[in-house]
Amino acid sequence: MRIADLQTPALLVEKAALEHNLRTMAEALPGARLRPHVKAHKTTGLAKLQRDAGHSGFTCATILEVEGMAAAGLGEDLLLANEVLDARRLGAVAASGARVTLAVDSDITVDAAVAGGVREVVVDVNVGLPRCGCEPEDAGRLADYARSKGLDVRGVMGYEGHVMPVEDPADKLRQTEECMTKLLKASADVGGDLVSAGGTGNYAINTWANEIQAGSYLLMDTAYGAQGMPFQQALTVLARVISINSGGWRVADLGLKSLGMDHGNPTIPGAAVWFCSDEHTTFSEDGASFAVGDVVRALPAHVDPTVAMHERLHVVDGEDVVETYEVDLRGW
Amino acid sequence: MRIADLQTPALLVEKAALEHNLRTMAEALPGARLRPHVKAHKTTGLAKLQRDAGHSGFTCATILEVEGMAAAGLGEDLLLANEVLDARRLGAVAASGARVTLAVDSDITVDAAVAGGVREVVVDVNVGLPRCGCEPEDAGRLADYARSKGLDVRGVMGYEGHVMPVEDPADKLRQTEECMTKLLKASADVGGDLVSAGGTGNYAINTWANEIQAGSYLLMDTAYGAQGMPFQQALTVLARVISINSGGWRVADLGLKSLGMDHGNPTIPGAAVWFCSDEHTTFSEDGASFAVGDVVRALPAHVDPTVAMHERLHVVDGEDVVETYEVDLRGW
Repeated sequence: MRIADLQTPALLVEKAALEHNLRTMAEALPGARLRPHVKAHKTTGLAKLQRDAGHSGFTCATILEVEGMAAAGLGEDLLLANEVLDARRLGAVAASGARVTLAVDSDITVDAAVAGGVREVVVDVNVGLPRCGCEPEDAGRLADYARSKGLDVRGVMGYEGHVMPVEDPADKLRQTEECMTKLLKASADVGGDLVSAGGTGNYAINTWANEIQAGSYLLMDTAYGAQGMPFQQALTVLARVISINSGGWRVADLGLKSLGMDHGNPTIPGAAVWFCSDEHTTFSEDGASFAVGDVVRALPAHVDPTVAMHERLHVVDGEDVVETYEVDLRGW
Repeated sequence: MRIADLQTPALLVEKAALEHNLRTMAEALPGARLRPHVKAHKTTGLAKLQRDAGHSGFTCATILEVEGMAAAGLGEDLLLANEVLDARRLGAVAASGARVTLAVDSDITVDAAVAGGVREVVVDVNVGLPRCGCEPEDAGRLADYARSKGLDVRGVMGYEGHVMPVEDPADKLRQTEECMTKLLKASADVGGDLVSAGGTGNYAINTWANEIQAGSYLLMDTAYGAQGMPFQQALTVLARVISINSGGWRVADLGLKSLGMDHGNPTIPGAAVWFCSDEHTTFSEDGASFAVGDVVRALPAHVDPTVAMHERLHVVDGEDVVETYEVDLRGW
């Protein structure tokens, strides 16, 4: 199939960029040094490529991601890096033979793990981002509580998400060290092997954690792209120009329902984007010219929620569609 | 089933509000005066309620919406109010016995309708919103061209979307009249019965169009809600508090992948929302108190893209889930 044969809007992944990103990360963080985060692509077909590149443990954000990864034969070591209050579906996945480890940050979430039949946990530690995680000082007590309930505590995790957008390298290094000092202190209190943290934004400098939860590196983001990382922008949204107007604007068939909008409008090369509607993006020419029927390849401002809006993604090489994967880890 | 048994995040629709909205609109615009827009809910189960309230013609935004409505037995009169360049799937729906009418705004889109086997069209006229639609002065020529190609031209449509957020009633009326004057001029040149326009934001004052394409009225929006309309907020996103922190914030399990974010953060009653991540919303208490395990019902800032992120929605009455519908018109 050719790109021109695709129904629009559609997700495209550039094969050469995908392979470059896989290879570059596997060289930097080989094997278990990387625990790829599947929330970025929600696609077991892409997770298999990551496993084939040497990474057999994965990070998940939802129960459904854990279930889907296990069902796809990728259940060697799945970490749900998120708190849940009803862990029964996770217990069922573990009972089916996959290895499931769940984040806990409170007595209630420990109790939920036990009640759901989950046997392995990590203590999620707050290292500065205002989100989940217990206070570092409470991590040892929580680990003791979990062990008293029969759980195996594999170690700690802590996500320094607020450090990812920091652009100055020295500042980013200093902030990462600050966060990881908290995590290592908690690790000493908790015990266990795992010190899981980090992301694409600081994968190269977080040498304190022994596994990095990066996900965005595979498809990449315009925000991370602007930071001069060695990964290439692999994901675009294919659309078609469906209308042009003598008032100076053009309209393509992608919009709020095919683009994650929390970081703002998409980028269309050669165009100035005016606004997005449910199924439309209105733009004017800015260096390129556009006629009805032309295809455009827009760069979404935020890749993760964009991917989650689509049923499938197409790996392309030149004008050829060489592989189509179902985005099979959507939903909850 | 009870609300407390639902996996979160989940879409809830308040039964009493849904019925109030159905009834209120059917009284204001009975029967064919309303052509409900299914893009707002993407759910044939809700479209059936609209049909049962007297509206048998529907507006769609995507080819898949047309296919799904026809497959659900709701194909009496489907208007795809959008331009498409490959109409073959629509031709197949028409051949299966449904009535399919397609918007055209250029010779190319007329040619696409013919090539795809679509037999009925409306001329889409630009009435001021910078999006699709031919110039009003070109509508008659385009209708002639369509007829010369063997198409049945049923009339005109024009969407005055830029008028919907106008708050001052006199200004809104004046701007609506301005837009509809253009549409009626085009209608005189085009011929045919249909003069299709409008939306929830001006359904009560657009007396020029003979059918109104409102969709948001059924589930409602915080933006429209602020305009003092007689419709009730029916849709919320159910979530659970999964973590609380002594730093003062709480975290619930809804985020960028379960909320349309183009209008900004959701509203959580009794809370001040700080920010949303992929699967989390961080907030502080602002009038209410929240403990781990509490359910919250967030109001998304924009309903249409929110609904499109979910596989199903639950109609609730008090604490009971009385009906679950698949959001079966997602995708393209």
